[in-house]
Amino acid sequence: MQPTGDLRGDAVHVGGDARQRFYDSRGYGRPVGGNAIELSRVEAAHLLFRGDLSGVRLGGDGDDPAGFERFFVDSAAAADRFAVRYLVYADLRDRGFYLSPAREPWPGGRADVADAVDVVAYERGSTPDTGDVHYPVRVVGERESVPADDVAGQTLAVVDEESDITYFETGRPDLTGSTDYDPPADLTGVLLADRVVVWDAPPALYERGFYGQPLSGRAAAVEGIVQLSLVEAASLAADGVLRLSEVVVGENGDGDIEPTGDDDTVPAGDDHASATAAIVARGRAVEGDRFGRRLATYRDLRERRTVPKTGFKFGADFRTYLDVETVEDLPHSEHLVRVVEPDHVFAPRELSLDVRLAGGVRKKLVFALVDGNGDPGGAGTDDGIEWLSVGRLTP
Amino acid sequence: MQPTGDLRGDAVHVGGDARQRFYDSRGYGRPVGGNAIELSRVEAAHLLFRGDLSGVRLGGDGDDPAGFERFFVDSAAAADRFAVRYLVYADLRDRGFYLSPAREPWPGGRADVADAVDVVAYERGSTPDTGDVHYPVRVVGERESVPADDVAGQTLAVVDEESDITYFETGRPDLTGSTDYDPPADLTGVLLADRVVVWDAPPALYERGFYGQPLSGRAAAVEGIVQLSLVEAASLAADGVLRLSEVVVGENGDGDIEPTGDDDTVPAGDDHASATAAIVARGRAVEGDRFGRRLATYRDLRERRTVPKTGFKFGADFRTYLDVETVEDLPHSEHLVRVVEPDHVFAPRELSLDVRLAGGVRKKLVFALVDGNGDPGGAGTDDGIEWLSVGRLTP
Repeated sequence: MQPTGDLRGDAVHVGGDARQRFYDSRGYGRPVGGNAIELSRVEAAHLLFRGDLSGVRLGGDGDDPAGFERFFVDSAAAADRFAVRYLVYADLRDRGFYLSPAREPWPGGRADVADAVDVVAYERGSTPDTGDVHYPVRVVGERESVPADDVAGQTLAVVDEESDITYFETGRPDLTGSTDYDPPADLTGVLLADRVVVWDAPPALYERGFYGQPLSGRAAAVEGIVQLSLVEAASLAADGVLRLSEVVVGENGDGDIEPTGDDDTVPAGDDHASATAAIVARGRAVEGDRFGRRLATYRDLRERRTVPKTGFKFGADFRTYLDVETVEDLPHSEHLVRVVEPDHVFAPRELSLDVRLAGGVRKKLVFALVDGNGDPGGAGTDDGIEWLSVGRLTP
Repeated sequence: MQPTGDLRGDAVHVGGDARQRFYDSRGYGRPVGGNAIELSRVEAAHLLFRGDLSGVRLGGDGDDPAGFERFFVDSAAAADRFAVRYLVYADLRDRGFYLSPAREPWPGGRADVADAVDVVAYERGSTPDTGDVHYPVRVVGERESVPADDVAGQTLAVVDEESDITYFETGRPDLTGSTDYDPPADLTGVLLADRVVVWDAPPALYERGFYGQPLSGRAAAVEGIVQLSLVEAASLAADGVLRLSEVVVGENGDGDIEPTGDDDTVPAGDDHASATAAIVARGRAVEGDRFGRRLATYRDLRERRTVPKTGFKFGADFRTYLDVETVEDLPHSEHLVRVVEPDHVFAPRELSLDVRLAGGVRKKLVFALVDGNGDPGGAGTDDGIEWLSVGRLTP
């Protein structure tokens, strides 16, 4: 006959030989003196599910001990997010891990484990006594928000509406490239509605620096035209490399840009600072505050000697190449970068989509948490970027 | 010496033998009497790019004809979305299509072409005179919105910030399955925070109907437990199949659901209508108005004899199986379904992500445009669903 437990507060007390039976050999619960232990509700439910506990008395000695069904419903009513936490616990147990609730007084309630973590999984073969934490698991229901600045280093266990669980690992990546190209200092371009065209670009600008995209085509009679995105152009202007010969300000019917009087084009100030200001202004008109954050991220990635290009096709802000020598021998981009604000919260469904897509194209997904408005800063700027990687995990 | 054109209003007039040279043999422009033609700005720019026009006089006879660079900038200032329209035109020309601007008085300005279409591409080998429209192309800059209810049947050409072009085809799909399963009429479940648990489910509910997910695990001492998503449960209740024995209303600290007094669980009304109401109310508490739309879509898909399951892992609302006989022999799901409101507008970057992911997992992406609040309706309900498919296209 399997033992019966007693619910006391929010823990289940089990006497008899519970310590040896459940804690020493299988890492359930925590010792409370003699051979007795206390189990969390999730742990007790799992032992009921396995038939290792025969029941749990919910209140007083007289009542009929609750089986799995009644105890589960009682726990769902009494304990926060019980169902999703139970499902993750059961899944990780089935995968062979020893686990502990990550709150005091359970063994998983350790100082080195973040508050948001629900349960810790120990290295395989380890117990709560001896083991290092392998996965600090944060259980997330499909509809719960996950703050981006509170998650690095945690293992996310996302439970969907049909009780399937997807695991994600998170980290703090350090993107460092070895690309080595300095653009020539005398580029001149024309600012259009949402891109910049350089008419006489030196071939190396694209072929070695991988800046922009040539305007090409079959039977082209015109060569040397390179189109830059607004972010690329703003960065080159801020580097003191690009100036503007013209700024196209009016397009009929284009509500984003106000025409100025009779002239549809106006000459820009002839220097790099004016060019930077004009391109940044256009970027904000097109994208709002996102432009500044994207530009700050772009410049940081270039400083790290990677080559950021548009991530549009992957639904990301950038795809990055760690090492570009020539465009002819282009490697595959290794990372997809999504630029967010520091207070960004993930919706698990979107995160699942982003991670799955990155995995499908064999790239690592990285988030850049960018503060401020991202103006290209000199000394004294306090724009900092916090990097976060998220990937699929099979525990 | 190649001919020179004259800009007149927003079209470029070319005399000489222009009709034979450009229109008859290559489908550029439109005849305007004799051998003269008029070209749109985009068409003229392309001929300049190819060196087939030597220049365009921008105003008056005296001025120096503009080459590609000056004409391009002049056009960018004067014409709405010129750069992106030019890029798509040039790309489709390079792919071997004859094209025509899709507005009167050009040949592409036909009654059977929607206003939002920018340029039509004719069947390969056809000309504007003789040809059927193969692709009615709507040019979309990366930052432009695309209304979901105004796009079926159009070919989207999305131009990203680096001038790469991604094409999408759109249609009105008819999802029809052949799944044949009627659930038993006497299921009883417990409503938890965000799911419903049925304790004594007949095996066929999951194994043949593919409703829910069994609560299973190694060494399980308890069997027959099936967990349903709120959408599945609401649908079964509305079908008169599922009733509730208990509704768990309070979870400590769960801000979504208000605890009711001293009881953390209350018995539900003992009938299907009460069950439906309770589950729908819980769905709205969890998801807001989206729940009603998702439920309406779920029920429509079941009526079409498909099996909808959660699309969470793919960032979608549902994945659907056209024909399920047993779960043991489950085919791959063929569609991913995203539920949106009828006035939904696509952001091209998100659309690109969704389509790419669906393609990567070999499923077709479908949008369900759902009106109203999606209450499971009887007669007189005017909830209708408009279906839209979007997929990647290589023209």
